Amino acid sequence: MKSLWVVYFSSMIKVVVLGFGNVGKHLVDAFLESDEIDLVQVYNRSRPKQFSTTPLEFTTDISEIKKADIHIVAIPDDDIASFSEEIPLENSLVVHTSGSVPMQELNTKNRQGVFYPLQTFTANRSVEFKEIPICVEAQNKEDLIVLLKLASAVSNNVQEINSEERRSLHLAAVFINNFVNHLYHISEEIVNQTNLNFNLLKPLLLETASKVINNSPKDVQTGPAKRNDQETIKKHLALLENKKYRKIYKAITKSITATYGKEL
Amino acid sequence: MKSLWVVYFSSMIKVVVLGFGNVGKHLVDAFLESDEIDLVQVYNRSRPKQFSTTPLEFTTDISEIKKADIHIVAIPDDDIASFSEEIPLENSLVVHTSGSVPMQELNTKNRQGVFYPLQTFTANRSVEFKEIPICVEAQNKEDLIVLLKLASAVSNNVQEINSEERRSLHLAAVFINNFVNHLYHISEEIVNQTNLNFNLLKPLLLETASKVINNSPKDVQTGPAKRNDQETIKKHLALLENKKYRKIYKAITKSITATYGKEL
Repeated sequence: MKSLWVVYFSSMIKVVVLGFGNVGKHLVDAFLESDEIDLVQVYNRSRPKQFSTTPLEFTTDISEIKKADIHIVAIPDDDIASFSEEIPLENSLVVHTSGSVPMQELNTKNRQGVFYPLQTFTANRSVEFKEIPICVEAQNKEDLIVLLKLASAVSNNVQEINSEERRSLHLAAVFINNFVNHLYHISEEIVNQTNLNFNLLKPLLLETASKVINNSPKDVQTGPAKRNDQETIKKHLALLENKKYRKIYKAITKSITATYGKEL
Repeated sequence: MKSLWVVYFSSMIKVVVLGFGNVGKHLVDAFLESDEIDLVQVYNRSRPKQFSTTPLEFTTDISEIKKADIHIVAIPDDDIASFSEEIPLENSLVVHTSGSVPMQELNTKNRQGVFYPLQTFTANRSVEFKEIPICVEAQNKEDLIVLLKLASAVSNNVQEINSEERRSLHLAAVFINNFVNHLYHISEEIVNQTNLNFNLLKPLLLETASKVINNSPKDVQTGPAKRNDQETIKKHLALLENKKYRKIYKAITKSITATYGKEL
């Protein structure tokens, strides 16, 4: 058994990517760059207008999906369960790329697993894939080893993370990415309303992010909420016309003052 | 008059910094590096344990404050009004560095102005001062010119911003810095509770910030709130034990779904 293993791993890992949206495209780009990965095929339900990368073995016909060591389902969360049922394979390793979907939602006719790149992907924006944490999970040790090998071929930051841990990680990611981005949006709206340019705030925006790379966010908090400076807080609330933004302002301010023990 | 002006400006700008906290220290460092600025004196109510920079003309005695072209008050917002009253000068240009305090709160015995560096300063953390937007405001044109010249000596990004605009800018800065930092803190707490390392989230954190340098935040929003994915939202709320964090989650989620027209 052990010797078979060695033979098996001396060859490239054969991968099929199912889904060619933002995540699928970035995975394909990363896989094509690796000597250790043989990207056998890409499936998408429709033909993309253009391929950014070298010609691919591509299909829109689910019945044509080829065999491989790993099938990676990179489609919207809500479609993962039903799509995994339609895959015309059995006892293959089929993994999804979602932060919030439990591994068990994949259909049981195949071996389940997760290959979750903890990053936000934007169309036409490349990212340093080597630095992206890849969180993998599998049902058995052999599959885990294959996933670890695949992940290591594209990233220097590979983690074994179970579904429960991944759930927390995804929630934290929603705060750090989705919610932070909405605060950026609110900021932009505020300055635009005063006919100022959002660019003015960008050095502050970047420094706020850079600062917590070497400091715990808790230790570098500043501002009126931390000081419980009610006068400034009142002035700010009076300036905010949007009710939803006022609610956000109040909720975060309350949480900050509570964190630093200055709640009234 | 005009020729006097020229003579006046051919010499260095004499500056006194009043206050040696985070802002004061960073200003002093920047001023000392400029050939166009003569840092005449630094005042602080107490003697700092150490000076990070070259020996300074320093005093803790308010009665010893020297004359200069500009006196910069870099002290906590709440103390600006009363401190400016105590300054033993008359008809000098006295400016503060605050984002939220109106210029008019400075005592009227001196000429009022503002020199607001739009950045967050941390002890023992240097910043690229040349890129910091400096927002200046003055009562008259002559003082404005002096402030513009001082600002231009330390930064490539100088803006004339009135008190009303500065109020909006400061509110936007609170969202982009104080509030974003608190979301970082919540994220860190969530992953720590699952015994995961906050470092896992740092590539995502940095990419979230970098992404909006060339894109409007509104155009790059993603996540369950934007999709109005109620199932994931419910799961997240169930995971969040801290009531204050749940309130923040709900308020931001509601605002995001409203922004993208998917409110129920």
